[in-house]
Amino acid sequence: MTQTKLLREQGVTAPAGFRAAGIAAGIKASGAPDLALVFNEGPDYTAAGVFTSNQVKAAPVRWSQQVLKGARLRAVILNSGGANACTGPGGFQDTHATAEAVAAALSEWGTETGAVEVAVCSTGLIGDRLPMDKVLAGVTEIVHEMAGGLVGGDEAARAIMTTDTVPKQVALHHKDNWTLGGMAKGAGMLAPSLATMLVVLTTDAKADAATLDKALRRATALTFDRLDIDGSCSTNDTVLLLSSGASEITPSPEDLEAAVLAACDDLCAQLQADAEGVTKRVTITVTGAGADDDALIAARCIARDSLVKTALFGSDPNWGRVLAAVGMVPFTIDPDRITVSFNGSPVFSDGAPMPGAREVDLSGADIHVVVELNQGPGQAMVRTTDLSHAYVEENSAYSS
Amino acid sequence: MTQTKLLREQGVTAPAGFRAAGIAAGIKASGAPDLALVFNEGPDYTAAGVFTSNQVKAAPVRWSQQVLKGARLRAVILNSGGANACTGPGGFQDTHATAEAVAAALSEWGTETGAVEVAVCSTGLIGDRLPMDKVLAGVTEIVHEMAGGLVGGDEAARAIMTTDTVPKQVALHHKDNWTLGGMAKGAGMLAPSLATMLVVLTTDAKADAATLDKALRRATALTFDRLDIDGSCSTNDTVLLLSSGASEITPSPEDLEAAVLAACDDLCAQLQADAEGVTKRVTITVTGAGADDDALIAARCIARDSLVKTALFGSDPNWGRVLAAVGMVPFTIDPDRITVSFNGSPVFSDGAPMPGAREVDLSGADIHVVVELNQGPGQAMVRTTDLSHAYVEENSAYSS
Repeated sequence: MTQTKLLREQGVTAPAGFRAAGIAAGIKASGAPDLALVFNEGPDYTAAGVFTSNQVKAAPVRWSQQVLKGARLRAVILNSGGANACTGPGGFQDTHATAEAVAAALSEWGTETGAVEVAVCSTGLIGDRLPMDKVLAGVTEIVHEMAGGLVGGDEAARAIMTTDTVPKQVALHHKDNWTLGGMAKGAGMLAPSLATMLVVLTTDAKADAATLDKALRRATALTFDRLDIDGSCSTNDTVLLLSSGASEITPSPEDLEAAVLAACDDLCAQLQADAEGVTKRVTITVTGAGADDDALIAARCIARDSLVKTALFGSDPNWGRVLAAVGMVPFTIDPDRITVSFNGSPVFSDGAPMPGAREVDLSGADIHVVVELNQGPGQAMVRTTDLSHAYVEENSAYSS
Repeated sequence: MTQTKLLREQGVTAPAGFRAAGIAAGIKASGAPDLALVFNEGPDYTAAGVFTSNQVKAAPVRWSQQVLKGARLRAVILNSGGANACTGPGGFQDTHATAEAVAAALSEWGTETGAVEVAVCSTGLIGDRLPMDKVLAGVTEIVHEMAGGLVGGDEAARAIMTTDTVPKQVALHHKDNWTLGGMAKGAGMLAPSLATMLVVLTTDAKADAATLDKALRRATALTFDRLDIDGSCSTNDTVLLLSSGASEITPSPEDLEAAVLAACDDLCAQLQADAEGVTKRVTITVTGAGADDDALIAARCIARDSLVKTALFGSDPNWGRVLAAVGMVPFTIDPDRITVSFNGSPVFSDGAPMPGAREVDLSGADIHVVVELNQGPGQAMVRTTDLSHAYVEENSAYSS
């Protein structure tokens, strides 16, 4: 990707053939922006999507999974201020009505669109019905706004924020004159399961649905699927990739995969840096496992351990807690062959602590934990954060 | 157990044939009590033990597992102030030397004892060698203290405390004139894996090792194995059951099992109530699973979820987080058939919230969450706590 320029602006409207908008529709009591639209002007309408593996799926997830089975994805409507999860048949009807309203407004504007070409994403508190009067009025307004010529990637990225403190966008300009853009939201309830947040990626590259799907699944498996803030998996996670083909360039599958991976990786780093209560950006790398999958399991065991995470909040190089966490993996390890390092300083080797292990400086904002199991070629990295007072505060004082 | 009296005093010295002591040997820098001894005067020396399933096992666990393979368990020496885990071959030699010193001191006192009849338990920070000069001097002192006639169950229970704020003891006096006693320590790094803390149980009932073993495994599976404070499993967990036979009464296996279960259950409740940072005592009950094992998996998924635990800290009936957690179980569920209740108030049923679901009062210290899956006869209960500021404080500001 060295010949490609990565920026963090414009996002979904960086590629040709996409418009977007973000407005305050009154779904959030605060009056903050809460409704976003991403619209594909074509000429192509191919798309791919990955969704939460949580068995409790929100109505918009179930709707969008159906939409992705169709041939075309014209538009994505996204709201914050309510997850529309666990809301029964009425909640699903609300999602359907939202897609119908978007399709009707786009058709009225002159782009004949069916509801089955409109994906829906929602985020916010689980369990409440959406205020549909506000959603439907907002849909009319946002389509008018977009039709007025707004190229509103920035506004869309702001409108999907919940506990996020900053919008997350990326734009990759490939040297061969095609572009990949994206936006993401997500700060808590982040744990791997295909994807764990709302993400919309757009590209003006030409690619068929199978190529998009392969590139997206590979990228999410290596990025969003390895971001684990709290082990809690959302009911609403959705990652969509839309192609307009407007560049009229068909990149090689390898170039497309590399671009999608780079965009997802950058959005993932932005999500980690803005996670709920974060004071430390932590990467857990496990090497020397029997297979990559085993390494990933071990890395997640460590990344989810509350005692490891509170120690890191305290800048405490408490490597014993890392050992205790890795000792719980469901495959056989040999503790005497494990080595552990913090920020490059070895702290444990040959079954015993290294000199100076308790004095490693972890006062900075970035902490790298590396665990070498010494039993094979498998390796994996997981991004996480510390477990701080702010995390407890945000998730106890605020119903989200 | 209605004809049996349960008290929370004396603990391991409540049954006939046991002596104990607890002293400050200088292992802890604070000068607090840190060395305990439990001694079986016989005539029987049968015993059973369960140990952590963590693959990273502390030296005293590996030593005591060997001791339990022998015919007799004479004494248990326990220290706080250091876990002696991840300390290499030197750490194991320290454990061995401690057992040798106890055996020598007891032999000198007139009770011919071998090191292989002495179990060792340690608790505290992982990764540091113990100050063996203090441990060995302490062993001599504690055996003298005990030989002096002290029946020191209370002192022993205090000497094994780490972040515990109160000692935990239990004594069950059976109507047939035999007694079961016990002590426990443990406040964090509590997660199910046979057992998750140091516990010594004693009885003057006569029972062979197989009977003791069966009663202990059944009881720990239903009690300590279902206490999950933070999902973190210790390297040092040990539960021992020693029989002196001094009552000369051989209870039925059923009576013995019931007594061991009742004692473990009571100690478990004491551990939960004194867990690190606890402000809420939480029980998660899952019913209607295909099998008890599935119910247990689901209950643990909920009990370990940071977002559920922070919501409960905030007295927030955020049932959507319970649904999101249960949606991650590795077996198939039907979200539309699940019902959830908080403290007896239904909050979710038929795929949608119940009226008043957001107004359930969770301001008290005890919270009962019941999840009915409606797919079979399986059920299980897990004890946990909330995730509070105090938990974060205790585990970030204190290297433990």
